[in-house]
Amino acid sequence: MRARERHVRARRVTEREVLLGVDVGGTTTSVGVVTRAGEVLVAQRVPTHRDGTGRALETIVELIAAVRREAEGRSRAIAAIGVGVPGPVDTRRGRIGEDVPHVPELAGRALAAELTARFGLPVFVDNDVNAQALGEWMFGAGRGACSLVVLAPGTGFGAGIVLEGRPVRGAAGFGGELGHTPVKFDGPPCWCGGRGCLALYASGRGIAEAARARLAGLAGAPLLAAAGGDPLAITAPLVFRAAREGDPAASAVVDEACRALGAMLGTVVNGLNPDVVVITGGVAESLVPLEAQILKRAGEYAFHRALALTRVTIVPGDKRTSMRGAAALAIYEMDRTDPRP
Amino acid sequence: MRARERHVRARRVTEREVLLGVDVGGTTTSVGVVTRAGEVLVAQRVPTHRDGTGRALETIVELIAAVRREAEGRSRAIAAIGVGVPGPVDTRRGRIGEDVPHVPELAGRALAAELTARFGLPVFVDNDVNAQALGEWMFGAGRGACSLVVLAPGTGFGAGIVLEGRPVRGAAGFGGELGHTPVKFDGPPCWCGGRGCLALYASGRGIAEAARARLAGLAGAPLLAAAGGDPLAITAPLVFRAAREGDPAASAVVDEACRALGAMLGTVVNGLNPDVVVITGGVAESLVPLEAQILKRAGEYAFHRALALTRVTIVPGDKRTSMRGAAALAIYEMDRTDPRP
Repeated sequence: MRARERHVRARRVTEREVLLGVDVGGTTTSVGVVTRAGEVLVAQRVPTHRDGTGRALETIVELIAAVRREAEGRSRAIAAIGVGVPGPVDTRRGRIGEDVPHVPELAGRALAAELTARFGLPVFVDNDVNAQALGEWMFGAGRGACSLVVLAPGTGFGAGIVLEGRPVRGAAGFGGELGHTPVKFDGPPCWCGGRGCLALYASGRGIAEAARARLAGLAGAPLLAAAGGDPLAITAPLVFRAAREGDPAASAVVDEACRALGAMLGTVVNGLNPDVVVITGGVAESLVPLEAQILKRAGEYAFHRALALTRVTIVPGDKRTSMRGAAALAIYEMDRTDPRP
Repeated sequence: MRARERHVRARRVTEREVLLGVDVGGTTTSVGVVTRAGEVLVAQRVPTHRDGTGRALETIVELIAAVRREAEGRSRAIAAIGVGVPGPVDTRRGRIGEDVPHVPELAGRALAAELTARFGLPVFVDNDVNAQALGEWMFGAGRGACSLVVLAPGTGFGAGIVLEGRPVRGAAGFGGELGHTPVKFDGPPCWCGGRGCLALYASGRGIAEAARARLAGLAGAPLLAAAGGDPLAITAPLVFRAAREGDPAASAVVDEACRALGAMLGTVVNGLNPDVVVITGGVAESLVPLEAQILKRAGEYAFHRALALTRVTIVPGDKRTSMRGAAALAIYEMDRTDPRP
């Protein structure tokens, strides 16, 4: 199988071929048929299994098989499968890390080898936002850029880095985890075990928790009323809406989110100096009206000359973006292993 | 000349050839004859001109000419010249940036073209700590590593990143400026125009200024006494010594430096996940006895699995390290432009 794998991998993806882009999310898993140009032809999704019955992998396999049949019904040859997973991945072995709280049943599994054995196709696995960064670089906001950083605040805070056309994976697959950059070294503890992380201030979970903390003891606050009086019903979209309507506690939380994102942009612009920064993920939609405020904050931290040369763009993502990212991963890996010049 | 340059560049450096490694510092400029293995055969230094007479470049040219004669007297052929400069550099054009406060006379100069015109040799210019990172990766603590980050607290705070064997230069030559990462987004203004930068807490200048601020009004403090009662005579080495002797203000400043460095290690380990982090620069010697404390602090911010796989080493650097870095830059650029496989 080693030989066969090598044989299959060592060539570029042609224009006629398609890729299967698999996005394994904490809630749903999606599989799409994606062209080399990044077009999603068909897609299906199912709930991600995480009930401890060990069926997580089987569910993914069944979905891939179904989408594969659909692609073949359209006479499109599949070149490879790309998979994005929420957590660290040993990309060389295609093995998922041990710390994957969103997909606990997949922890430590050699996903690439298992899927290759089932489908006889080259399979490439990476962190979902790393894959998305490749997708943005290949098809999206970073097309034509030399280097690009994706910041993806969702429930947690993912991130991905592509420098000079290559994803930054790091020695142990943690590369690109900028969501757990300490933006305040004497800040409060983070759920990751760290302290003062960006995710505390600017992820969906962090924003909701910060609002709850500020509202403790403020019985009549408009934000709390909007959540039906139940602090646990406060969500990040609710906080953004209350801030737009002038709620002081919500405004303070949103202002702090913008400052922390501005500081992160400073870190990225001064440290990596990319051409493009894409802010995406579930929280991005709420950030669109705050773009000017975030960029103003970035100006408090970044070298002005460097920031002026950086294109910062907020792009609310969706499942299609994730599937395209996974397909971009497969294209990137297929192309770079082609020995022909 | 374009053709000649291309002709000269397009080949690997041989084992017999040597490089001229030029380190342009804020105080002195050093030029060394360096072998492909990183050995410094001979070296000379002169004070860097910064008196506004415009002789800065002429001084460098004279020094290079003198060291070149010495190399040729030993029958060693010079393959190329590498130059490290304190500030951002447009490495593609070999042009120094506009923001180079330590060498103001060189701001905006096309140093590579000017030196090539004088010496008829390929010349490569980069930020000094970027070059040093290449030196550590090629000859030093990062030898054999896939990726490496150099943190260099001196008077200011330089840094350099090599990922998968390639230096991170960024779109505008600011790549690797991790010293101006905001480690505290609501921290005080930094001299770079930013806020809460690492340099405020952990550079020589930052440490001395933080100690002065803490001592304001504390007439009898031991640290102040050690500085002869003159707050302006407080230096970083004095602060480290006073902390070792138990001075409370100095200890608080040193503890904060360790926390900020720990946070930076968290940022680097989680975000870039390199194999090796080298802490060097003028302050490094004072940090050697604090290694355990810095690593303990890093553990408060970094993913434990990732930190456990990272080798962090404190290496007090010297002029030889800088010249080797500049030579490593020249070797890297010569080798990678060689079209032969």
